[in-house]
Amino acid sequence: MTRHKQSGVLALQWTGHSLKVLDQRQLPEKISYDEYTDAYGVAEAITTMRVRGAPAIGIAAAYGVVLSVYQHYSQIDNNWRQHVLADIGTLANSRPTAVNLFWALNQMKAVLDGEGDNPRPAIFACAEKIHADDIAANYKMGELGADILANAKGIMTHCNTGALATGGYGTALGVIRSLYARNAVKIYAGETRPWLQGQRLTVWELAQDKIPVTLIADSAAAWLMRSGAIDWVVVGADRIALNGDVANKIGTYSLAVLAKQHNVKVMVVAPTSTIDGSINSGDQIEIEQRQQSELLPACYKDNTFVSAWNPVFDVTPAELISAIVTERGVVMNPGEIGVDRLLKT
Amino acid sequence: MTRHKQSGVLALQWTGHSLKVLDQRQLPEKISYDEYTDAYGVAEAITTMRVRGAPAIGIAAAYGVVLSVYQHYSQIDNNWRQHVLADIGTLANSRPTAVNLFWALNQMKAVLDGEGDNPRPAIFACAEKIHADDIAANYKMGELGADILANAKGIMTHCNTGALATGGYGTALGVIRSLYARNAVKIYAGETRPWLQGQRLTVWELAQDKIPVTLIADSAAAWLMRSGAIDWVVVGADRIALNGDVANKIGTYSLAVLAKQHNVKVMVVAPTSTIDGSINSGDQIEIEQRQQSELLPACYKDNTFVSAWNPVFDVTPAELISAIVTERGVVMNPGEIGVDRLLKT
Repeated sequence: MTRHKQSGVLALQWTGHSLKVLDQRQLPEKISYDEYTDAYGVAEAITTMRVRGAPAIGIAAAYGVVLSVYQHYSQIDNNWRQHVLADIGTLANSRPTAVNLFWALNQMKAVLDGEGDNPRPAIFACAEKIHADDIAANYKMGELGADILANAKGIMTHCNTGALATGGYGTALGVIRSLYARNAVKIYAGETRPWLQGQRLTVWELAQDKIPVTLIADSAAAWLMRSGAIDWVVVGADRIALNGDVANKIGTYSLAVLAKQHNVKVMVVAPTSTIDGSINSGDQIEIEQRQQSELLPACYKDNTFVSAWNPVFDVTPAELISAIVTERGVVMNPGEIGVDRLLKT
Repeated sequence: MTRHKQSGVLALQWTGHSLKVLDQRQLPEKISYDEYTDAYGVAEAITTMRVRGAPAIGIAAAYGVVLSVYQHYSQIDNNWRQHVLADIGTLANSRPTAVNLFWALNQMKAVLDGEGDNPRPAIFACAEKIHADDIAANYKMGELGADILANAKGIMTHCNTGALATGGYGTALGVIRSLYARNAVKIYAGETRPWLQGQRLTVWELAQDKIPVTLIADSAAAWLMRSGAIDWVVVGADRIALNGDVANKIGTYSLAVLAKQHNVKVMVVAPTSTIDGSINSGDQIEIEQRQQSELLPACYKDNTFVSAWNPVFDVTPAELISAIVTERGVVMNPGEIGVDRLLKT
């Protein structure tokens, strides 16, 4: 196994009594951390997209529960549990799509339910484990994915799925890192409007690690594919249904349809915590709509003739996906067999 | 025939001795005209994209030749022709793709060649006719296109093909205007990265005329098509080959491939001056690459690991197009029969 170097870029830093969150909205111009000492602040950091990326959101929320317990736990007042549960509710409402968020909160809640006496050590240990497990899963997926991409000459990715979106290495971008460590594949990143995660985060993160990357407008992907430069599209996921349908950043479905028409394959890389065992199909995934102002300049604000349609995610049907890579293994052609087997191992 | 109201937005205004050019880079925040009194200035206005859109570029270049003749013509010095021809060369080099530019310059040159005495009246008349003919062609195409779209409920367009891109009404956006005048179709505009012509120009122009429009990220088009909201994609063209292949704003090819997969039809609207009778296929069209800085933030400027791929146009194969609408008539399914018949009528 390749020896992995953790990326120098950390989206989340636990200080012992607070969570430092890199304000990703200010990248690449400025590296600025905000420090949070309660769950409300962490929920705010998620809602405002200071931190984003499904795995990172889950980890941040777990630390948010730690902060809540640190704040509210009291030996003499049993009401502390109610406060913590209310904070968990607040954290759960911070973003609707990333299932890792609910997965992490459920784990934290289970620890809470199981602890009679001082829950502080156990609750912190659980958050720390969620964080460490995520990084370990990233490394594992990096190797599994790179094995499949061994002969690829050109890779296209979308949004940011790197150290900034995870515990510290990346899902799709982790695979790309691992692949690049083996052979100098050409990497293309889509800008990813409207938030420009590709332009601001992926390009920045790869450049920090001295990995060459070429940025393109999202709408140029088809033309790039037609040139023959791309063998695989490699993306992350915010939620995966049991049939293998994948909710991910808006534009992923577009890339998958275009890939099929150009004999390009699609790989989705995500920890099994991204699989939503409660839904059979992507049709059941609620798509978050964000503010129109993310697309519209301020001068249109009161113009009744102008509106914007701003879904943050789309759903890619499993049949357009060639491989789903998780820390528990790979499912090839998920459209034929779904991904439920990954939850049973 | 519908009575057309010329849009209040004018990209170009001839003053009698100068050309006023609306600086489209500053829209929608600011309406600001720059005034040019020589051909060099007009070429600069085209290169810097103060004025853009294939028909508008052609018209601006024609007025540029008028300014050159006004500046250089002299009864006593026969060298003026050399100066004007040099200016025509400068204008021809201002943008490489829009064939309307070369078409307009060739018309102006023919007038110049035919005039022994004072060429000023004839050269101005030719530019004025190119301008007036363009507007008349827009109206004609508007009607022809709207006839075909009669039953459409939702239309998607890309880039800006309206009054700002033409003599004053629009090609694709002219068809959409004419259609909307008949029935209140739902109009979606793609942002059109990296210059955001959709967000800055199309949305602004439609709102000025009180036509409701919904803006989307370019990468959301596939997801919107999947929802069933779109019946037709209606776009302009910068150059059309004899086989019906169409060079247009980057992202058009993407929309055409996606349209095919979602049973959405594609209409291209352009005057016959956009047809390049010298090329049989889109493969022969040179694709303009613009600066990486249009995609990359300044902080990446000296970063050797970061680059951008920034083609301004792509080529949509004729077989993905259902209709090409010109002022001389419509070609349905150009992939089967090409468009050369339009040059023969």
